[in-house]
Amino acid sequence: MKDLIPEATVRRLSHYLRCIEMMEKCCYGENLQSKDLARMCSISDSVVRRDLSYFGTFGIKGVGYDLKRLKDSIKRILGLTEKKKVVVVGVGNIGRALIGYLSRVDGFEVVAAFDNDPQKIGKKIGKIKIEDAVNITPITANLNAEIAVVAVPSDEAQKVVNRLVKGRVKGILNFALVPLKVPDDVTVRYIELLTELEVLTYNIKKRRKS
Amino acid sequence: MKDLIPEATVRRLSHYLRCIEMMEKCCYGENLQSKDLARMCSISDSVVRRDLSYFGTFGIKGVGYDLKRLKDSIKRILGLTEKKKVVVVGVGNIGRALIGYLSRVDGFEVVAAFDNDPQKIGKKIGKIKIEDAVNITPITANLNAEIAVVAVPSDEAQKVVNRLVKGRVKGILNFALVPLKVPDDVTVRYIELLTELEVLTYNIKKRRKS
Repeated sequence: MKDLIPEATVRRLSHYLRCIEMMEKCCYGENLQSKDLARMCSISDSVVRRDLSYFGTFGIKGVGYDLKRLKDSIKRILGLTEKKKVVVVGVGNIGRALIGYLSRVDGFEVVAAFDNDPQKIGKKIGKIKIEDAVNITPITANLNAEIAVVAVPSDEAQKVVNRLVKGRVKGILNFALVPLKVPDDVTVRYIELLTELEVLTYNIKKRRKS
Repeated sequence: MKDLIPEATVRRLSHYLRCIEMMEKCCYGENLQSKDLARMCSISDSVVRRDLSYFGTFGIKGVGYDLKRLKDSIKRILGLTEKKKVVVVGVGNIGRALIGYLSRVDGFEVVAAFDNDPQKIGKKIGKIKIEDAVNITPITANLNAEIAVVAVPSDEAQKVVNRLVKGRVKGILNFALVPLKVPDDVTVRYIELLTELEVLTYNIKKRRKS
Protein backbone atom coordinates (compact mmCIF):
# COMPACT_ATOMS: atom_id res chain seq x y z
CA MET A 1 0.00 0.00 0.00
CA LYS A 2 1.36 3.41 -0.91
CA ASP A 3 2.09 5.68 2.00
CA LEU A 4 0.96 9.07 0.79
CA ILE A 5 -2.73 8.95 0.02
CA PRO A 6 -4.11 12.34 -1.05
CA GLU A 7 -6.84 13.66 1.22
CA ALA A 8 -9.27 13.85 -1.69
CA THR A 9 -8.85 10.09 -2.13
CA VAL A 10 -9.46 9.47 1.57
CA ARG A 11 -12.66 11.54 1.33
CA ARG A 12 -13.79 9.56 -1.70
CA LEU A 13 -13.10 6.26 0.09
CA SER A 14 -15.57 7.46 2.69
CA HIS A 15 -18.06 8.23 -0.11
CA TYR A 16 -17.50 4.80 -1.69
CA LEU A 17 -18.25 3.21 1.66
CA ARG A 18 -21.55 5.11 1.83
CA CYS A 19 -22.43 4.11 -1.74
CA ILE A 20 -21.57 0.46 -1.12
CA GLU A 21 -23.80 0.46 1.96
CA MET A 22 -26.65 1.89 -0.12
CA MET A 23 -26.01 -0.69 -2.84
CA GLU A 24 -26.16 -3.48 -0.26
CA LYS A 25 -29.56 -2.19 0.88
CA CYS A 26 -30.81 -2.12 -2.72
CA CYS A 27 -30.01 -5.84 -2.97
CA TYR A 28 -27.23 -5.25 -5.46
CA GLY A 29 -25.45 -8.53 -6.45
CA GLU A 30 -22.20 -9.74 -4.91
CA ASN A 31 -20.00 -8.37 -7.65
CA LEU A 32 -19.56 -4.73 -8.39
CA GLN A 33 -18.14 -3.06 -11.49
CA SER A 34 -16.21 0.15 -10.92
CA LYS A 35 -18.57 1.90 -13.37
CA ASP A 36 -21.59 1.06 -11.16
CA LEU A 37 -19.83 2.42 -8.07
CA ALA A 38 -18.83 5.48 -10.12
CA ARG A 39 -22.41 6.12 -11.26
CA MET A 40 -23.81 5.59 -7.76
CA CYS A 41 -21.29 8.07 -6.31
CA SER A 42 -21.43 10.54 -9.23
CA ILE A 43 -17.66 10.18 -9.66
CA SER A 44 -15.92 9.23 -12.91
CA ASP A 45 -15.08 5.58 -13.52
CA SER A 46 -11.39 6.32 -14.05
CA VAL A 47 -11.14 8.16 -10.70
CA VAL A 48 -12.77 5.23 -8.90
CA ARG A 49 -10.35 2.78 -10.46
CA ARG A 50 -7.33 4.97 -9.71
CA ASP A 51 -8.44 5.49 -6.09
CA LEU A 52 -8.88 1.78 -5.47
CA SER A 53 -5.59 0.95 -7.17
CA TYR A 54 -3.78 2.92 -4.44
CA PHE A 55 -4.53 0.08 -2.12
CA GLY A 56 -3.53 -2.88 -4.27
CA THR A 57 -5.70 -4.90 -6.60
CA PHE A 58 -9.11 -5.74 -5.23
CA GLY A 59 -10.94 -6.30 -8.49
CA ILE A 60 -10.79 -9.06 -11.06
CA LYS A 61 -10.79 -7.87 -14.67
CA GLY A 62 -14.20 -8.43 -16.28
CA VAL A 63 -15.69 -9.66 -12.99
CA GLY A 64 -15.31 -6.56 -10.85
CA TYR A 65 -15.05 -6.16 -7.11
CA ASP A 66 -16.50 -8.41 -4.43
CA LEU A 67 -18.88 -6.00 -2.66
CA LYS A 68 -18.31 -7.28 0.87
CA ARG A 69 -14.56 -7.60 0.48
CA LEU A 70 -14.25 -4.11 -0.97
CA LYS A 71 -16.30 -2.69 1.92
CA ASP A 72 -14.12 -4.47 4.50
CA SER A 73 -10.95 -3.29 2.77
CA ILE A 74 -12.06 0.35 2.73
CA LYS A 75 -13.04 0.12 6.41
CA ARG A 76 -9.63 -1.35 7.21
CA ILE A 77 -7.83 1.39 5.26
CA LEU A 78 -9.79 4.13 7.01
CA GLY A 79 -9.20 2.51 10.40
CA LEU A 80 -12.87 1.71 10.94
CA THR A 81 -12.54 -1.95 11.89
CA GLU A 82 -13.70 -1.22 15.42
CA LYS A 83 -16.07 1.41 16.81
CA LYS A 84 -14.24 4.66 17.53
CA LYS A 85 -14.93 6.35 20.84
CA VAL A 86 -16.04 9.97 20.57
CA VAL A 87 -16.53 12.60 23.26
CA VAL A 88 -18.78 15.59 22.62
CA VAL A 89 -18.04 18.92 24.30
CA GLY A 90 -20.88 21.44 24.37
CA VAL A 91 -24.40 20.12 24.64
CA GLY A 92 -26.29 22.95 22.97
CA ASN A 93 -28.43 22.43 19.87
CA ILE A 94 -25.58 21.28 17.66
CA GLY A 95 -23.90 19.03 20.26
CA ARG A 96 -27.22 17.41 21.11
CA ALA A 97 -28.00 16.84 17.42
CA LEU A 98 -24.62 15.20 16.90
CA ILE A 99 -25.08 12.84 19.83
CA GLY A 100 -28.40 11.77 18.28
CA TYR A 101 -26.84 11.47 14.83
CA LEU A 102 -23.84 9.43 15.99
CA SER A 103 -26.09 7.01 17.87
CA ARG A 104 -27.51 5.98 14.51
CA VAL A 105 -24.31 5.59 12.45
CA ASP A 106 -21.92 2.67 12.31
CA GLY A 107 -18.31 3.05 13.28
CA PHE A 108 -18.55 5.72 15.99
CA GLU A 109 -19.82 5.70 19.55
CA VAL A 110 -20.30 8.68 21.86
CA VAL A 111 -18.82 7.66 25.22
CA ALA A 112 -19.02 10.98 27.08
CA ALA A 113 -20.54 14.45 26.82
CA PHE A 114 -19.42 17.62 28.60
CA ASP A 115 -20.83 21.06 29.30
CA ASN A 116 -20.09 23.88 31.73
CA ASP A 117 -23.74 24.76 32.38
CA PRO A 118 -24.73 23.64 35.91
CA GLN A 119 -28.31 23.22 34.63
CA LYS A 120 -27.10 20.57 32.19
CA ILE A 121 -24.38 18.77 34.18
CA GLY A 122 -25.64 15.46 35.59
CA LYS A 123 -28.59 15.24 33.18
CA LYS A 124 -28.70 12.53 30.52
CA ILE A 125 -29.03 12.48 26.74
CA GLY A 126 -30.06 8.93 25.89
CA LYS A 127 -27.59 6.79 27.80
CA ILE A 128 -24.92 9.50 28.06
CA LYS A 129 -24.59 11.48 31.28
CA ILE A 130 -23.48 15.09 30.82
CA GLU A 131 -20.23 15.64 32.75
CA ASP A 132 -18.70 18.86 34.02
CA ALA A 133 -16.32 20.31 31.41
CA VAL A 134 -13.63 20.80 34.08
CA ASN A 135 -13.22 17.01 34.07
CA ILE A 136 -12.59 16.64 30.33
CA THR A 137 -8.94 15.60 30.72
CA PRO A 138 -9.22 12.72 33.23
CA ILE A 139 -12.49 11.32 31.82
CA THR A 140 -11.31 11.40 28.20
CA ALA A 141 -7.95 9.82 29.08
CA ASN A 142 -9.64 7.16 31.18
CA LEU A 143 -12.05 6.24 28.37
CA ASN A 144 -9.27 6.16 25.75
CA ALA A 145 -11.38 8.35 23.47
CA GLU A 146 -9.27 9.59 20.57
CA ILE A 147 -11.91 11.71 18.80
CA ALA A 148 -13.73 14.77 20.11
CA VAL A 149 -16.48 16.94 18.71
CA VAL A 150 -16.26 20.54 19.92
CA ALA A 151 -19.49 22.53 19.73
CA VAL A 152 -18.93 25.33 22.24
CA PRO A 153 -18.96 29.14 21.84
CA SER A 154 -15.88 30.47 20.02
CA ASP A 155 -14.30 32.07 23.06
CA GLU A 156 -14.31 28.78 24.99
CA ALA A 157 -13.05 26.54 22.19
CA GLN A 158 -9.28 26.81 22.76
CA LYS A 159 -9.58 26.13 26.50
CA VAL A 160 -11.69 23.04 25.81
CA VAL A 161 -9.26 21.84 23.16
CA ASN A 162 -6.28 22.20 25.53
CA ARG A 163 -8.05 19.92 28.01
CA LEU A 164 -8.88 17.41 25.27
CA VAL A 165 -5.26 17.33 24.07
CA LYS A 166 -4.10 16.67 27.65
CA GLY A 167 -6.65 13.85 27.72
CA ARG A 168 -4.83 12.30 24.71
CA VAL A 169 -7.46 13.11 22.06
CA LYS A 170 -5.87 12.93 18.58
CA GLY A 171 -8.67 14.12 16.29
CA ILE A 172 -11.05 17.04 16.74
CA LEU A 173 -14.12 18.00 14.76
CA ASN A 174 -14.60 21.70 15.49
CA PHE A 175 -17.88 23.59 15.04
CA ALA A 176 -16.62 26.72 16.80
CA LEU A 177 -15.81 29.60 14.45
CA VAL A 178 -12.18 30.03 15.50
CA PRO A 179 -8.88 28.52 14.40
CA LEU A 180 -7.48 26.18 17.07
CA LYS A 181 -3.89 25.65 18.15
CA VAL A 182 -2.99 21.99 18.63
CA PRO A 183 0.24 19.95 18.75
CA ASP A 184 1.50 18.35 15.53
CA ASP A 185 0.12 14.92 16.37
CA VAL A 186 -3.47 16.20 16.65
CA THR A 187 -5.70 16.78 13.61
CA VAL A 188 -8.50 19.35 13.57
CA ARG A 189 -11.30 19.35 10.99
CA TYR A 190 -13.51 22.44 10.81
CA ILE A 191 -17.23 22.42 10.13
CA GLU A 192 -17.91 26.01 9.21
CA LEU A 193 -21.66 26.33 8.80
CA LEU A 194 -21.66 30.11 8.57
CA THR A 195 -18.75 30.14 6.10
CA GLU A 196 -20.54 27.61 3.88
CA LEU A 197 -23.66 29.79 3.88
CA GLU A 198 -21.57 32.85 3.05
CA VAL A 199 -19.82 31.06 0.17
CA LEU A 200 -23.28 30.08 -1.13
CA THR A 201 -24.40 33.70 -0.87
CA TYR A 202 -21.31 34.87 -2.77
CA ASN A 203 -21.89 32.28 -5.52
CA ILE A 204 -25.54 33.31 -5.90
CA LYS A 205 -24.57 36.97 -6.16
CA LYS A 206 -21.79 36.22 -8.67
CA ARG A 207 -24.09 34.15 -10.91
CA ARG A 208 -26.81 36.74 -10.90
CA LYS A 209 -24.29 39.26 -12.23
CA SER A 210 -22.81 37.06 -14.97
CA MET B 1 -12.86 44.33 -8.79
CA LYS B 2 -11.45 41.22 -10.42
CA ASP B 3 -14.00 38.73 -11.63
CA LEU B 4 -12.50 35.39 -10.77
CA ILE B 5 -12.01 35.17 -7.02
CA PRO B 6 -10.66 31.78 -5.90
CA GLU B 7 -12.99 29.92 -3.54
CA ALA B 8 -10.24 29.76 -0.90
CA THR B 9 -10.21 33.57 -0.88
CA VAL B 10 -14.00 33.72 -0.52
CA ARG B 11 -13.77 31.33 2.45
CA ARG B 12 -11.06 33.47 4.03
CA LEU B 13 -13.16 36.62 3.56
CA SER B 14 -15.79 34.89 5.64
CA HIS B 15 -13.11 34.12 8.27
CA TYR B 16 -11.91 37.74 8.22
CA LEU B 17 -15.46 38.88 8.84
CA ARG B 18 -15.67 36.60 11.88
CA CYS B 19 -12.31 37.88 13.18
CA ILE B 20 -13.29 41.51 12.66
CA GLU B 21 -16.51 40.93 14.60
CA MET B 22 -14.50 39.40 17.45
CA MET B 23 -12.05 42.33 17.33
CA GLU B 24 -14.94 44.79 17.54
CA LYS B 25 -16.18 43.02 20.67
CA CYS B 26 -12.70 43.19 22.23
CA CYS B 27 -12.81 46.99 21.85
CA TYR B 28 -10.07 46.98 19.24
CA GLY B 29 -9.33 50.50 17.90
CA GLU B 30 -10.74 51.91 14.68
CA ASN B 31 -7.71 51.11 12.57
CA LEU B 32 -6.53 47.65 11.83
CA GLN B 33 -3.16 46.49 10.52
CA SER B 34 -3.20 43.49 8.22
CA LYS B 35 -0.76 41.74 10.56
CA ASP B 36 -3.26 42.00 13.44
CA LEU B 37 -6.03 40.53 11.32
CA ALA B 38 -3.58 37.84 10.19
CA ARG B 39 -2.64 36.91 13.75
CA MET B 40 -6.27 36.89 14.90
CA CYS B 41 -7.24 34.58 12.02
CA SER B 42 -4.08 32.43 12.14
CA ILE B 43 -3.42 33.27 8.48
CA SER B 44 -0.18 34.75 7.14
CA ASP B 45 0.06 38.50 6.73
CA SER B 46 0.95 38.27 3.03
CA VAL B 47 -2.12 36.13 2.32
CA VAL B 48 -4.37 38.63 4.09
CA ARG B 49 -2.92 41.51 2.09
CA ARG B 50 -3.20 39.60 -1.21
CA ASP B 51 -6.79 38.58 -0.47
CA LEU B 52 -7.85 42.13 0.31
CA SER B 53 -6.02 43.50 -2.73
CA TYR B 54 -8.38 41.47 -4.96
CA PHE B 55 -11.06 43.96 -4.10
CA GLY B 56 -9.19 47.19 -4.62
CA THR B 57 -7.32 49.24 -2.05
CA PHE B 58 -9.02 49.51 1.32
CA GLY B 59 -5.99 50.20 3.43
CA ILE B 60 -3.75 53.23 3.82
CA LYS B 61 -0.04 52.45 3.98
CA GLY B 62 1.26 52.76 7.55
CA VAL B 63 -2.25 53.45 8.89
CA GLY B 64 -3.99 50.19 8.01
CA TYR B 65 -7.63 49.44 7.40
CA ASP B 66 -10.62 51.20 8.86
CA LEU B 67 -12.29 48.37 10.80
CA LYS B 68 -15.89 49.30 10.05
CA ARG B 69 -15.24 50.12 6.40
CA LEU B 70 -13.39 46.84 5.87
CA LYS B 71 -16.24 44.90 7.49
CA ASP B 72 -18.84 46.63 5.32
CA SER B 73 -16.75 46.02 2.20
CA ILE B 74 -16.38 42.30 2.91
CA LYS B 75 -20.11 42.05 3.58
CA ARG B 76 -20.84 43.78 0.29
CA ILE B 77 -18.44 41.50 -1.61
CA LEU B 78 -20.02 38.38 -0.11
CA GLY B 79 -23.53 39.68 -0.81
CA LEU B 80 -24.41 39.99 2.86
CA THR B 81 -25.74 43.55 2.83
CA GLU B 82 -29.26 42.33 3.61
CA LYS B 83 -30.50 39.31 5.56
CA LYS B 84 -30.69 36.24 3.36
CA LYS B 85 -33.84 34.14 3.57
CA VAL B 86 -33.23 30.47 4.30
CA VAL B 87 -35.64 27.53 4.28
CA VAL B 88 -34.83 24.38 6.26
CA VAL B 89 -36.05 21.00 5.03
CA GLY B 90 -36.05 18.16 7.56
CA VAL B 91 -36.73 19.04 11.17
CA GLY B 92 -34.87 16.20 12.89
CA ASN B 93 -32.03 16.80 15.33
CA ILE B 94 -29.77 18.51 12.82
CA GLY B 95 -32.48 20.63 11.17
CA ARG B 96 -33.75 21.78 14.56
CA ALA B 97 -30.21 22.62 15.71
CA LEU B 98 -29.64 24.70 12.57
CA ILE B 99 -32.84 26.67 13.03
CA GLY B 100 -31.66 27.50 16.56
CA TYR B 101 -28.17 28.34 15.34
CA LEU B 102 -29.33 30.58 12.49
CA SER B 103 -31.65 32.49 14.82
CA ARG B 104 -28.53 33.72 16.62
CA VAL B 105 -26.31 34.68 13.67
CA ASP B 106 -26.34 37.87 11.64
CA GLY B 107 -26.97 37.81 7.93
CA PHE B 108 -29.37 34.86 7.63
CA GLU B 109 -33.00 34.36 8.60
CA VAL B 110 -34.96 31.11 8.57
CA VAL B 111 -38.30 31.92 6.92
CA ALA B 112 -39.80 28.43 6.60
CA ALA B 113 -39.25 24.85 7.76
CA PHE B 114 -40.55 21.66 6.17
CA ASP B 115 -40.96 18.03 7.15
CA ASN B 116 -42.99 15.08 5.89
CA ASP B 117 -43.79 13.70 9.36
CA PRO B 118 -47.51 14.32 10.15
CA GLN B 119 -46.54 14.46 13.85
CA LYS B 120 -44.34 17.49 13.14
CA ILE B 121 -46.33 19.36 10.48
CA GLY B 122 -48.20 22.33 11.95
CA LYS B 123 -46.05 22.47 15.10
CA LYS B 124 -43.74 25.40 15.72
CA ILE B 125 -40.02 25.84 16.38
CA GLY B 126 -39.66 29.31 17.85
CA LYS B 127 -41.61 31.51 15.46
CA ILE B 128 -41.35 29.10 12.52
CA LYS B 129 -44.31 26.84 11.69
CA ILE B 130 -43.36 23.45 10.26
CA GLU B 131 -44.95 23.08 6.83
CA ASP B 132 -45.74 19.93 4.85
CA ALA B 133 -42.80 19.07 2.56
CA VAL B 134 -45.19 18.61 -0.39
CA ASN B 135 -45.59 22.40 -0.38
CA ILE B 136 -41.89 23.23 -0.66
CA THR B 137 -42.13 24.65 -4.19
CA PRO B 138 -44.96 27.19 -3.81
CA ILE B 139 -43.98 28.34 -0.31
CA THR B 140 -40.30 28.80 -1.18
CA ALA B 141 -41.10 30.65 -4.42
CA ASN B 142 -43.60 32.85 -2.62
CA LEU B 143 -41.10 33.78 0.09
CA ASN B 144 -38.32 34.46 -2.43
CA ALA B 145 -35.95 32.29 -0.39
CA GLU B 146 -32.79 31.60 -2.36
CA ILE B 147 -30.98 29.42 0.17
CA ALA B 148 -32.07 26.06 1.55
CA VAL B 149 -30.62 23.74 4.16
CA VAL B 150 -31.40 20.07 3.45
CA ALA B 151 -31.21 17.76 6.47
CA VAL B 152 -33.34 14.79 5.39
CA PRO B 153 -32.51 11.07 5.05
CA SER B 154 -30.32 10.30 2.01
CA ASP B 155 -33.05 8.58 0.01
CA GLU B 156 -35.33 11.62 0.21
CA ALA B 157 -32.72 14.27 -0.56
CA GLN B 158 -32.98 14.39 -4.37
CA LYS B 159 -36.78 14.63 -4.31
CA VAL B 160 -36.62 17.51 -1.84
CA VAL B 161 -33.94 19.26 -3.90
CA ASN B 162 -36.04 19.00 -7.08
CA ARG B 163 -38.88 20.77 -5.28
CA LEU B 164 -36.52 23.47 -3.98
CA VAL B 165 -35.08 24.09 -7.45
CA LYS B 166 -38.62 24.48 -8.83
CA GLY B 167 -39.19 26.98 -6.01
CA ARG B 168 -36.25 29.03 -7.39
CA VAL B 169 -33.72 28.19 -4.66
CA LYS B 170 -30.19 28.93 -5.92
CA GLY B 171 -27.97 27.68 -3.09
CA ILE B 172 -28.27 24.46 -1.07
CA LEU B 173 -26.41 23.37 2.05
CA ASN B 174 -26.76 19.59 2.07
CA PHE B 175 -26.33 17.38 5.14
CA ALA B 176 -27.63 14.25 3.41
CA LEU B 177 -24.90 11.76 2.51
CA VAL B 178 -25.64 11.64 -1.22
CA PRO B 179 -24.47 13.63 -4.24
CA LEU B 180 -27.28 15.82 -5.61
CA LYS B 181 -28.16 16.65 -9.19
CA VAL B 182 -29.00 20.32 -9.74
CA PRO B 183 -29.11 22.70 -12.74
CA ASP B 184 -26.01 24.75 -13.54
CA ASP B 185 -27.33 27.90 -11.88
CA VAL B 186 -27.72 26.19 -8.49
CA THR B 187 -24.80 25.67 -6.08
CA VAL B 188 -24.68 22.81 -3.58
CA ARG B 189 -22.32 22.75 -0.58
CA TYR B 190 -21.96 19.48 1.30
CA ILE B 191 -21.54 19.13 5.05
CA GLU B 192 -20.29 15.60 5.43
CA LEU B 193 -20.10 14.89 9.14
CA LEU B 194 -19.47 11.19 8.76
CA THR B 195 -16.80 11.75 6.11
CA GLU B 196 -15.02 14.30 8.33
CA LEU B 197 -14.99 11.78 11.18
CA GLU B 198 -13.67 9.09 8.86
CA VAL B 199 -10.89 11.36 7.57
CA LEU B 200 -9.97 12.07 11.21
CA THR B 201 -9.88 8.34 11.91
CA TYR B 202 -7.65 7.74 8.90
CA ASN B 203 -5.26 10.53 9.98
CA ILE B 204 -5.05 9.13 13.52
CA LYS B 205 -4.30 5.65 12.19
CA LYS B 206 -1.70 6.97 9.74
CA ARG B 207 0.11 9.00 12.41
CA ARG B 208 0.21 6.13 14.84
CA LYS B 209 2.00 4.06 12.19
CA SER B 210 4.52 6.70 11.18
